[in-house]
Amino acid sequence: MLRAIFSGDDMPIYNAPLQDMRFLLNDVFQADQFWQSNEQLAHVDMATVDAVLEEMAKFSAGVLLPLNRSGDEEGAKIEGTVVTTPTGFKEAFKLYAEGGWVGLGAAEEWGGQGMPKMVTMLAEEMIFAVNPSFTLYPLLSVGACLAISAYASQEQKETYLPRIYSGEWSGTMCLTEPHAGTDLGIIKTKAIPNGDGSFAISGTKIFITGGEHDLTSNHIHLVLAKTPDAPEGSKGISLFIVPKFNVNADGSLGERNAVAAGSIEHKMGIKASATCVMNFDGAKGFLVGKENEGLAAMFVMMNYERLSMGLQGLGASEIAFQNAAVYAHDRIQGRSATGTKSPEKAADPIIHHPDVRRMLLNGKVNNEAGRCFAMYVARQLDLSKYGTAEQQKAAADRVALLTPVAKAFLTDRALNATLDAQLVFGGHGYIREWGMEQYVRDVRIAQIYEGTNGIQSLDLMGRKIVRNGGASVVPYLAEIRDAMSKLGAEHDFLKTAMEKAVSRVEAITRTVIERSKTNPDEVNAACVDYLHAFGLMSYGYMFVLLLNAAAGKSGEFYANKTTLAKFFVARVLPELYARADAIEGGAESLMAFDAAYFA
Amino acid sequence: MLRAIFSGDDMPIYNAPLQDMRFLLNDVFQADQFWQSNEQLAHVDMATVDAVLEEMAKFSAGVLLPLNRSGDEEGAKIEGTVVTTPTGFKEAFKLYAEGGWVGLGAAEEWGGQGMPKMVTMLAEEMIFAVNPSFTLYPLLSVGACLAISAYASQEQKETYLPRIYSGEWSGTMCLTEPHAGTDLGIIKTKAIPNGDGSFAISGTKIFITGGEHDLTSNHIHLVLAKTPDAPEGSKGISLFIVPKFNVNADGSLGERNAVAAGSIEHKMGIKASATCVMNFDGAKGFLVGKENEGLAAMFVMMNYERLSMGLQGLGASEIAFQNAAVYAHDRIQGRSATGTKSPEKAADPIIHHPDVRRMLLNGKVNNEAGRCFAMYVARQLDLSKYGTAEQQKAAADRVALLTPVAKAFLTDRALNATLDAQLVFGGHGYIREWGMEQYVRDVRIAQIYEGTNGIQSLDLMGRKIVRNGGASVVPYLAEIRDAMSKLGAEHDFLKTAMEKAVSRVEAITRTVIERSKTNPDEVNAACVDYLHAFGLMSYGYMFVLLLNAAAGKSGEFYANKTTLAKFFVARVLPELYARADAIEGGAESLMAFDAAYFA
Repeated sequence: MLRAIFSGDDMPIYNAPLQDMRFLLNDVFQADQFWQSNEQLAHVDMATVDAVLEEMAKFSAGVLLPLNRSGDEEGAKIEGTVVTTPTGFKEAFKLYAEGGWVGLGAAEEWGGQGMPKMVTMLAEEMIFAVNPSFTLYPLLSVGACLAISAYASQEQKETYLPRIYSGEWSGTMCLTEPHAGTDLGIIKTKAIPNGDGSFAISGTKIFITGGEHDLTSNHIHLVLAKTPDAPEGSKGISLFIVPKFNVNADGSLGERNAVAAGSIEHKMGIKASATCVMNFDGAKGFLVGKENEGLAAMFVMMNYERLSMGLQGLGASEIAFQNAAVYAHDRIQGRSATGTKSPEKAADPIIHHPDVRRMLLNGKVNNEAGRCFAMYVARQLDLSKYGTAEQQKAAADRVALLTPVAKAFLTDRALNATLDAQLVFGGHGYIREWGMEQYVRDVRIAQIYEGTNGIQSLDLMGRKIVRNGGASVVPYLAEIRDAMSKLGAEHDFLKTAMEKAVSRVEAITRTVIERSKTNPDEVNAACVDYLHAFGLMSYGYMFVLLLNAAAGKSGEFYANKTTLAKFFVARVLPELYARADAIEGGAESLMAFDAAYFA
Repeated sequence: MLRAIFSGDDMPIYNAPLQDMRFLLNDVFQADQFWQSNEQLAHVDMATVDAVLEEMAKFSAGVLLPLNRSGDEEGAKIEGTVVTTPTGFKEAFKLYAEGGWVGLGAAEEWGGQGMPKMVTMLAEEMIFAVNPSFTLYPLLSVGACLAISAYASQEQKETYLPRIYSGEWSGTMCLTEPHAGTDLGIIKTKAIPNGDGSFAISGTKIFITGGEHDLTSNHIHLVLAKTPDAPEGSKGISLFIVPKFNVNADGSLGERNAVAAGSIEHKMGIKASATCVMNFDGAKGFLVGKENEGLAAMFVMMNYERLSMGLQGLGASEIAFQNAAVYAHDRIQGRSATGTKSPEKAADPIIHHPDVRRMLLNGKVNNEAGRCFAMYVARQLDLSKYGTAEQQKAAADRVALLTPVAKAFLTDRALNATLDAQLVFGGHGYIREWGMEQYVRDVRIAQIYEGTNGIQSLDLMGRKIVRNGGASVVPYLAEIRDAMSKLGAEHDFLKTAMEKAVSRVEAITRTVIERSKTNPDEVNAACVDYLHAFGLMSYGYMFVLLLNAAAGKSGEFYANKTTLAKFFVARVLPELYARADAIEGGAESLMAFDAAYFA
């Protein structure tokens, strides 16, 4: 009702940023050339990709966007063990499956379209922008398929992959237990051999996204469990396939398996996504890969999923920006400090107030640098899968280094972007009908699940950097400096800023590695600030790539890249130094308190 | 259900931080001495205040805390024009009124308890912590009374004040209109003289907190409106009293006035607080004070309200911290990097992980420095009301300078504190039953209403600093340096840090003032970063006051103040320099874009 007063609209808008996406593919990452030079990707060409992006842009805005707020208000529901998705989700999923979207990135042998991550990530960004709750259903299916593709037997692949990629069935990842989230080494779910090669799985899993729903005829659960006599801790965890309905030899559905949803969570956001407590009561399960090697299978999947969580952030940041930008043109309030801009109105549109622009540009920086960073990581994921042996090794290292950054930094910045966009709306931003507050609530989970951003930071600082004495960072920084050396004279402002930034990150990396030798707590004490410093430097690197790609091209679109980079350097990058100073502040003041101080 | 697994509790806990509150009153601000030396406050003594705080602590935890989550789930409801508060609110309000809490700060002649702001702020912090939705009902009543006390006729005061302060009636503030929030100069509500001294008020007001509800028998609306021929803009706004039921000469209720709630908002949080659209259809209204001077009356009230919004932030930050701290002791996950801490458990409690402490300590800094800052401002409010003429002038200047900081900085830091506390809970933090996500949703409004934090920052930077060439800052900085000079040698770390911080704030203040002379946009471009730099410096000042007060006292309570100050200097204060650098980055990159870039 209020909305009508200002914009005549009755829902948020979304225009997929296709021009920026194409600029990244064509000019920044020369995707076509990359694909053509790689045998396994030679079937991909830009014309097809263009069509994919256009179609997904339409599907997102036309089908999924209208279900976002109604899905939030209605939520997923449970009665007994039956879970119902909100009105319209079933029909939308049917269209989604029929469009071949579930298998967009799947191999053609499993019925997929064989698109590389550089393309699927753009599709993911779009659907995450318009309807994150919906997106989680197919996303988890894809995650399950990745683990199956990498570790399951040929027979298992043939049984499950085509039916999940077609959208007939769906998949889940069952990891977390009530007492064990981050620390999977202490899970209690048991897998007892039945003697016929199958296992009886018993235990309770929580926070299972899409554990039960009405979108598909069967659910294929991938479950972490411990066999009898398994070693303690993370080295004694195995991975099992547990179908909701047992699957007959011909692929048809057999009896109901002993697995069911016990309840669904009432959450802050992503309310249309059913987050289930799953009870396994001696359910029939099938080992995937080798016994006690279940965590490795999980990690394959998780590198992909973690980038997806970054994309959830990116999508939220983009749609929040778009709507706040429209509002800032519509809403009038006060007069511009430099003189009236709209004399015909009672006040000027708030887009003329510098602080409103500051908020919008924070979002814009995140959208452009974040998307570029996500594509950089996606390209590395593609290389790690399709490249030469040497490329695969280098790319896998880079993926390992950057995945926690893509997950945590993009989602942390995204929360800020949605908060800024909400504030542009003033009081209206707090009202559900306007849709802005939902972006905040929905994106918040992306900082928490798939390993909290604190855990991602620890992964970056500890496992990915300190553990190898910083070796993984060296080639990345060298690559950044190389790209900087290609900046034209007109981009000296960025070169100067980045020289300082890269050196500082280099210095704090050394500092933490050194300190950790005498005090291992320094790693955990530094990690979140380090991830942010590292992320800001990486965004700076992305601006280097953007400006190098835009150099010599004329038109406002390209000129604006430079202006945005100037904003980044002047107004965003300074945070890097505060983070670095905080890291140098060390662990001492954190650990000086007795634990009792905190309670 | 999940909660039971860990803590055996079924709701969040709250322990009013009475020891810290007493430390502030007794040792930091020598309240007793301050009151005794001031004739109008001589009736206040520490024994009474102690009893007030103890009672409020019990009432908060015992009566209001249990209604917080149920109030959120149930929400305020409207049927026709009748608004119902959630189950239990009516009974709680009755107890609250009977306890004399509405009139805690009111003059004794109106039935109040005559407590100074230094005391009422502590009570407010407690009830905001446990139930912000509930708190808004009496808070708005008190706000309305402040405007009435300052500007209304003796007859109006006698009619309304005792009945509102007793909790029989309640009050509202009707300012915002659909097209006019921050910019009240463009409101459209009309006030046409009826010829009998009263006015016919017509128009629509939105976002009216407690505009209609079932807690009291009458609602006294304070309404901003324009009389015919009023000057344009903010100089043509008058203030009116519009009762829901007309009041007979003997104070009994007469006919229903032509004012009613049209709808209530569906919000992100504070769902138990009825946020109403109020329709005035020729409702009978009575001028308060002089025609066209309505905004001045509002501002009296608003300085008090804005501190209250800061207290809403403080309360949220405190209760979120308390619950996260308990959880961090209960929840086990991984092992401490410096060696196993709880060998008897499958993993160590997460309180031993430095990053968990970092999150908790961010909250703790906000609680302690924020409470100290709020009390500093409250003391200035008391001086501005009860001091000598000279004191009143100086205190009013200081209040004007610091009120936007108390509102915006405390609530910005509070959102971060609730987000950090939520993250300590991992996935459970996202689940409604645990209560943590409600703190985030509820406190978010405090950054938006009573003038967004962007507007508060502009008020600080523009009206309070640049407009007087920085004159208002000079005595504040001098006072801070004076307090720093009293730090003992053991607190040199703080002195050194603060010397740098104060000098930097001084420098950026000059920079913005200078730049604004040639480019007025520099003020708005700098304001949010400036408010944060200024706020961080002020928190540093509060630590100076805390350590000076703790000096020479033995015991862990006092020693911990120093350790917390060390954490603040090492890990929080660095942000000040990033903010300052961003300010120096200037307005240019913000304004270089054509407005069309944003849409």
